[in-house]
Amino acid sequence: MPATVHAESRPGLLIPADRTDRGRPVAPSTGHWRPLGLGEVSIDDGFWADLQALNATTMLAHCEAWIETMGWSGNFDAALEGRLPQDRRGREFSDSEIYKLLEAMSWEVGRTGDQGLDARLRSLVARVAAAQEPDGYLNTRFGRPGQAPRYSDLQWGHELYCFGHLIQAGVARARTHGDDELVRIAVRAADHVCATFGADAHQGVCGHPEIEVALVELYRLTGEHRYLDQARLFIERRGHGVLGDIEFGPEYFQDDQPVRQTTVMAGHAVRALYLAAAAADLAVEDHDGELLATITRQTATTLARRTYLTGGMGAHHEGESFGQDFELPPDRAYSETCAGVASVMLNHRLLLATGDPLHADAVERTLYNVVATSPARDGNAFYYTNTLHQRSPGSVPRADVASARASSSLRAPWFEVSCCPTNVTRTVASLAAYLATADDDGVQIHQYAGSTIATRIGARGEVALRVATAYPDHGSVQVTVLRSPEAPWTLTLRVPAWAAGAELTVGGITRTVEPGYAMVTQAFAVGDVVLLHLPVAPRWTLPDPRIDALRGQVAVERGPIVLCLESTDLGATVNTVHTRTAGPPVEHDGVVHVPAATREPRDGSWPYQSAPQDTVQPDGRDVVDHGLVPLVPYHRWANRGPSTMRVWIPVAD
Amino acid sequence: MPATVHAESRPGLLIPADRTDRGRPVAPSTGHWRPLGLGEVSIDDGFWADLQALNATTMLAHCEAWIETMGWSGNFDAALEGRLPQDRRGREFSDSEIYKLLEAMSWEVGRTGDQGLDARLRSLVARVAAAQEPDGYLNTRFGRPGQAPRYSDLQWGHELYCFGHLIQAGVARARTHGDDELVRIAVRAADHVCATFGADAHQGVCGHPEIEVALVELYRLTGEHRYLDQARLFIERRGHGVLGDIEFGPEYFQDDQPVRQTTVMAGHAVRALYLAAAAADLAVEDHDGELLATITRQTATTLARRTYLTGGMGAHHEGESFGQDFELPPDRAYSETCAGVASVMLNHRLLLATGDPLHADAVERTLYNVVATSPARDGNAFYYTNTLHQRSPGSVPRADVASARASSSLRAPWFEVSCCPTNVTRTVASLAAYLATADDDGVQIHQYAGSTIATRIGARGEVALRVATAYPDHGSVQVTVLRSPEAPWTLTLRVPAWAAGAELTVGGITRTVEPGYAMVTQAFAVGDVVLLHLPVAPRWTLPDPRIDALRGQVAVERGPIVLCLESTDLGATVNTVHTRTAGPPVEHDGVVHVPAATREPRDGSWPYQSAPQDTVQPDGRDVVDHGLVPLVPYHRWANRGPSTMRVWIPVAD
Repeated sequence: MPATVHAESRPGLLIPADRTDRGRPVAPSTGHWRPLGLGEVSIDDGFWADLQALNATTMLAHCEAWIETMGWSGNFDAALEGRLPQDRRGREFSDSEIYKLLEAMSWEVGRTGDQGLDARLRSLVARVAAAQEPDGYLNTRFGRPGQAPRYSDLQWGHELYCFGHLIQAGVARARTHGDDELVRIAVRAADHVCATFGADAHQGVCGHPEIEVALVELYRLTGEHRYLDQARLFIERRGHGVLGDIEFGPEYFQDDQPVRQTTVMAGHAVRALYLAAAAADLAVEDHDGELLATITRQTATTLARRTYLTGGMGAHHEGESFGQDFELPPDRAYSETCAGVASVMLNHRLLLATGDPLHADAVERTLYNVVATSPARDGNAFYYTNTLHQRSPGSVPRADVASARASSSLRAPWFEVSCCPTNVTRTVASLAAYLATADDDGVQIHQYAGSTIATRIGARGEVALRVATAYPDHGSVQVTVLRSPEAPWTLTLRVPAWAAGAELTVGGITRTVEPGYAMVTQAFAVGDVVLLHLPVAPRWTLPDPRIDALRGQVAVERGPIVLCLESTDLGATVNTVHTRTAGPPVEHDGVVHVPAATREPRDGSWPYQSAPQDTVQPDGRDVVDHGLVPLVPYHRWANRGPSTMRVWIPVAD
Repeated sequence: MPATVHAESRPGLLIPADRTDRGRPVAPSTGHWRPLGLGEVSIDDGFWADLQALNATTMLAHCEAWIETMGWSGNFDAALEGRLPQDRRGREFSDSEIYKLLEAMSWEVGRTGDQGLDARLRSLVARVAAAQEPDGYLNTRFGRPGQAPRYSDLQWGHELYCFGHLIQAGVARARTHGDDELVRIAVRAADHVCATFGADAHQGVCGHPEIEVALVELYRLTGEHRYLDQARLFIERRGHGVLGDIEFGPEYFQDDQPVRQTTVMAGHAVRALYLAAAAADLAVEDHDGELLATITRQTATTLARRTYLTGGMGAHHEGESFGQDFELPPDRAYSETCAGVASVMLNHRLLLATGDPLHADAVERTLYNVVATSPARDGNAFYYTNTLHQRSPGSVPRADVASARASSSLRAPWFEVSCCPTNVTRTVASLAAYLATADDDGVQIHQYAGSTIATRIGARGEVALRVATAYPDHGSVQVTVLRSPEAPWTLTLRVPAWAAGAELTVGGITRTVEPGYAMVTQAFAVGDVVLLHLPVAPRWTLPDPRIDALRGQVAVERGPIVLCLESTDLGATVNTVHTRTAGPPVEHDGVVHVPAATREPRDGSWPYQSAPQDTVQPDGRDVVDHGLVPLVPYHRWANRGPSTMRVWIPVAD
C-alpha cells in the first residue's frame, strides 16, 4: 500500500492542507488528468522497485558522501564561519547539488517514512539554513567581500538556478511532510527572488532556466500568486537577448527568441527542457491555450526530429546542445542524463495537460533507456552523457576523484560537474508519481510496474487497484480491483506506440487494442481483473531516412527497452560489425540474439577510394561470422568492464 | 621569373648569407629533398596566382584593418603608453595575429618587392618593438601590474605560442629581406625563452605548441644550437602531464603521452599538428630516425583514419579535436582552417624528409579543399570551420562585428578568435615554396601551377623550367626547359594517387605513368618539353566502410578538387537528396553534373519505426526527380548567399 504522506500544516506558513497531501511533484490546478502522488501510488516490486531500493540503500548515501568529500556541503559551513571565499570548493552551481539531494531525500522520506534518512535530511537542512542571509539570499559563491556581487553574472552564475532547486526541495518536503525548516528556507528564498526580480525591479533572467518551474510549483503549493507572477515574468522576459551574447550564441540559453515563438528545441538541452516544462506549467495555470499549444508542438517536433531512440536529447557535446533536425550521431550523442530527467518532467506535464499518449510513451522510453542507464548496477557510479556508440573501450574512472563529465569511459563515481547523480536520485525517489492519473471518470495507468494505486474518483468514491506484472521482461499486466465505488467508472490503460497487436482481456473476453489508450468502462467489483497483454517480442527498428548518421543501420528493441551489442558478448570490436535482418531477432532464455559478422577492411593509406561506377558497394572481404550473438538492454551496458558498444548495427542485407 | 629575394646580411645578427637566400619557409639541414623557396619558384598564373593576387590586393589589407579595428595592434601602443591592462582588447592570444600578419607581409614583400607593403610592415613592427621589455619578454596580456604574472597560466595563456609566431615572422623576414628590426625582436624573444625555459630553468611547456617549430627554424636560420636545444626540451618535456589537468583531459594539448609514443593524432587538431611538425623538424636536425619514423607513422595513420575527404582534420567541435578512428561526421566536421594550414606544414616537412608522395598528395588536397575554401571569392571573409554538410542555410554574418568562430553561417569578415584569416594569408603568400624541390640529381615538381622554377642542381649547374598548365581545370602540365646544365639530370613529376591512367610524353613518346613519381632522366636542351597528362575527369568516390557517418553515400571528385552539391543549384534542400551512380558523373562545359532526386518522408511523431523484417529499406515515396544537377567545387561553396550543401550524397541505387 502507499506510504503514509503526512498532511500536517504548521503555523508560520500558509500551505492549505489540501495542497499538501498526496505527495505529488507536479500539481496543476487544471488539466486533462489529475496526477496521483506518492500518497496514492506505491511501486511494490519489479524493475523500478529494484531501482528505488538501490536508491534507498546506496545511491542517496553515495551522493551524500560525495557532496561532503567534495566540500560542497561544507561551503555552507564555511559561509557561516566566515571562511568564504577562500575555503569555497566546487563550481558555481555546487549549492544546487545539495538542494537536489534534499529534494530526493524528501521524496524518499515521504515514500518510506525512513526516520534515519529524515534525521540526515534535517541535519543537512540546518547547515543550509544557517547560511541564509536575513533578506532570504542564499548562495555560497556570491555576495561576500572578495566574491563577485550578487547577480553580477546572470549568464553563468546560476544563482537563480540554485534557488530553483532549493524551492523544488522545499516543495517536495512540504508535499511529503508539511511545513518545516527546508520549506521555510525555500519560501524566504522565493520571496527574495520576487522582491529582487519583480516587475519593477531587476529585469534579468538566469542563464540556466529552473527557477521558473520551481516558482510555479511553489504557487501551486501555497496559492500565493506572486510566485506564479514571477515565473511568468522570467519566462516572458527571456528570448529578447537580455542575457547578452556568448560564444555559443544566445540560443545556448534560449535567449534568442521567446519560448512562445520557438518551434523546436535548440541550444543547451537541459536548459531548453526546463524552460519548456515551466512554460507548460505557466500555460496551464494561466489557462493560456496558445502557449500550451506552442509548447506541445515544440515538444512533438523535438521528439520527431531531435531525439535519440533511447529518448535521449542533446546531439552536440559542444554546448551540451540539441543538433539540427535529424542530426543525431550515435557516437557523439551527448544525451545528458539530466536532459532525460528534464524530458520526463516536460512530458509528464504535457501528458497531464493534454492526455496525449505520445508524452507517456516518451516518459517510459526515457525512464528505461536514459534515466535507468545512468546508474551502475551497484548504484555507486553514474553516466553523465549516454552515447549510443562507444568506439573505444575507454578506461575505468578513478574511484577517489571526480571525473570530467564527458569522458569516454565507464560510469564514474562523481563528476566535477555532478548534476546527474542527484537528478537521478530525486527522479527515482518520486517515480511513483509517473505511474497513474485520475479524473472524474476513473483512473488511467500510464506506466506498468508492480504497484498499488489508491485514490478517489471525483464524487464516486474510493478506488484501489493492484497492478501485477513482470513488465518489461514480460508483457502481461494484470490489474485487480481492491476497492471500487458501486457506480461504473473507467479504467484506462496505455498501449505503447510499439505495441501493435496488444490484447485486453476483461471478464474472460479478449479483444485487440490499438496503441494509445484502451478503456474499460463498467461497474467494477472487488476482485475483478483486467488483463493487458503487450507483445514485447524483440523487433528490428529502422531510422528515419533523414538521419544521415544511421543510414544502413538497424536497432533492436524489446518492449520499451532499447537493446545494444557490446563487445563483451561479440568477442570483437563492434566498430566493424554488421547484422542481417532476413529473420526477426531471436530470443533464447530471455536473451535476444542477432546474427553478427565483423569485417575488417584492409588498411589503406587513404580512406576514400574511387571505384568503377558499377561496384559502388562496401567491400565484403575478410568477414568473420560470429553466428548469433546476444544483445543486452542498453541500460545495463558497461557493467562488465570496459567495452565497445553500439545500439545501431549496420545491415549487410 | 622568381621575385628577387634580398640576401643582405647586416651587423648585429649572425645570419650567414647562405641561409638567408632563397626565401624558404622550411630549410632543413638534411633530408630526402631540398625545398625551393620564394627566390627559386614563382607562381605566374592560374588558380594559385589568382589567390595570391587576391591576397595582395585584399586579404592582407583586410587583416590589417581588422587587427586595428579590434584594437589588437593597439594593445602594443597601450603597453608603451602604460594603458594596460585597462585598455587591452581581445583574447589572450591576440598578439599572435599581429605576428602571423607580419609573417604574411614578410613573405609577400619577398615575393613581390612591394615597397608600400614593406613600409606598412615596418610601421607595424615599430609598434611591436616598442612594447618589448629589456629582457626580451613581449606580451600585452601578462606581467604588468594588474595583469597575471608572466607564465602564470601555461595551460591557456598562449605566451610561448605568441613567441612562436613572432619568431616565425622574424624568420620569414630574415629569409626574404635579411636582418632588420623584426628579426631582432624575434631573436631577443627567443633568447628570453631559452633563458627562462632552459634545461635548468622553468620546466614548463606552452598549452598550445608552436614555439617548438619556430625555434627549430630559428636554429636553421642562425645556426645557433641553443634554439634547437630549447625546441628539443619543449618537445621532450611534453606528454608527462606537466600542464596539469583540464576538463578536456591532457590529450587536448598533447600532454597525455610523449609525442614519441603517440601512434595517431588526438586532441586539439592544430596543437597536435604543430607539435608533430616541430617533432619532424627536430628529428631531421637530430638525425633521429626513430622519431622521424614515429611522426611519419602517426601522420600516415591520421591520414588513413582521421582525415576528411577535403584533407580537413578535426571531427569534434568540442575541444576542436580529432575524433576517434573513422569518426568523421560530415555535418559536424570542425576541419578548422588552421588545422589545414598545420597539416600542410607537417606534410611538407615529411615530404622533404622522406620523399613519400603521400605527403605531397595531402598538401595538394588540403590546399585546394581546406585552405582555399576559407576565403570568400572577394577575399573579405573567411571560414574558420569547414563543414562538409550544411544542414540549414544559416545567416549572413554582420560585416562590422567579429563572429563566433563556429557559427553555422556564411564566411565571416572576422572572428573573436581569429587565427584563421592570418594563417591563410601567410600560407598563400608563401605558396611557391610548396611547388618544387631539388636534389643533386634534379628537380621534383610536386604541385602544378603556371610557374617558373630556377635553381641549381648540386654541382651540375643552373636549371630553369617553365610550367604551363590550366590545372586543376585541365589535366595537361607542360614543362619547358629554359636553362639546363649539359649533363643529364632527372626531372621528377608527381602523379597524384587519384590519377590512374596518367600519361607522360617526352620527345614525342607517350607512356602511362603510375601514381607516385614519374621520372625523366636525360640531357635536357633549352626548349625541351615534358608533357604530363593527368585524367581529371569527374569520378565517384566511396568512403571506407568503417566511417559510419558516410555509409550509403558517395562524393564526387575531379582531379584534386572535391565537389559538392549546393541547394542553390538543386533548388531544394540537400538534406533529403539522393543520387544514382549507375553512370559516371557528367561534365558539360566544364561543370560536373550528377542525377539528383529529393525524397521527403511523411513526418511522423517518432523517427524510428518497426517494419517487417523483409522490408528493411528506406521508404521511397514522395520522390521529386531533379534530373542532372550541377556540382560546384567545395572551395567555392557559399559564395552565392546562404545555402545548404553536402559533399557526401546518399545513393539510391
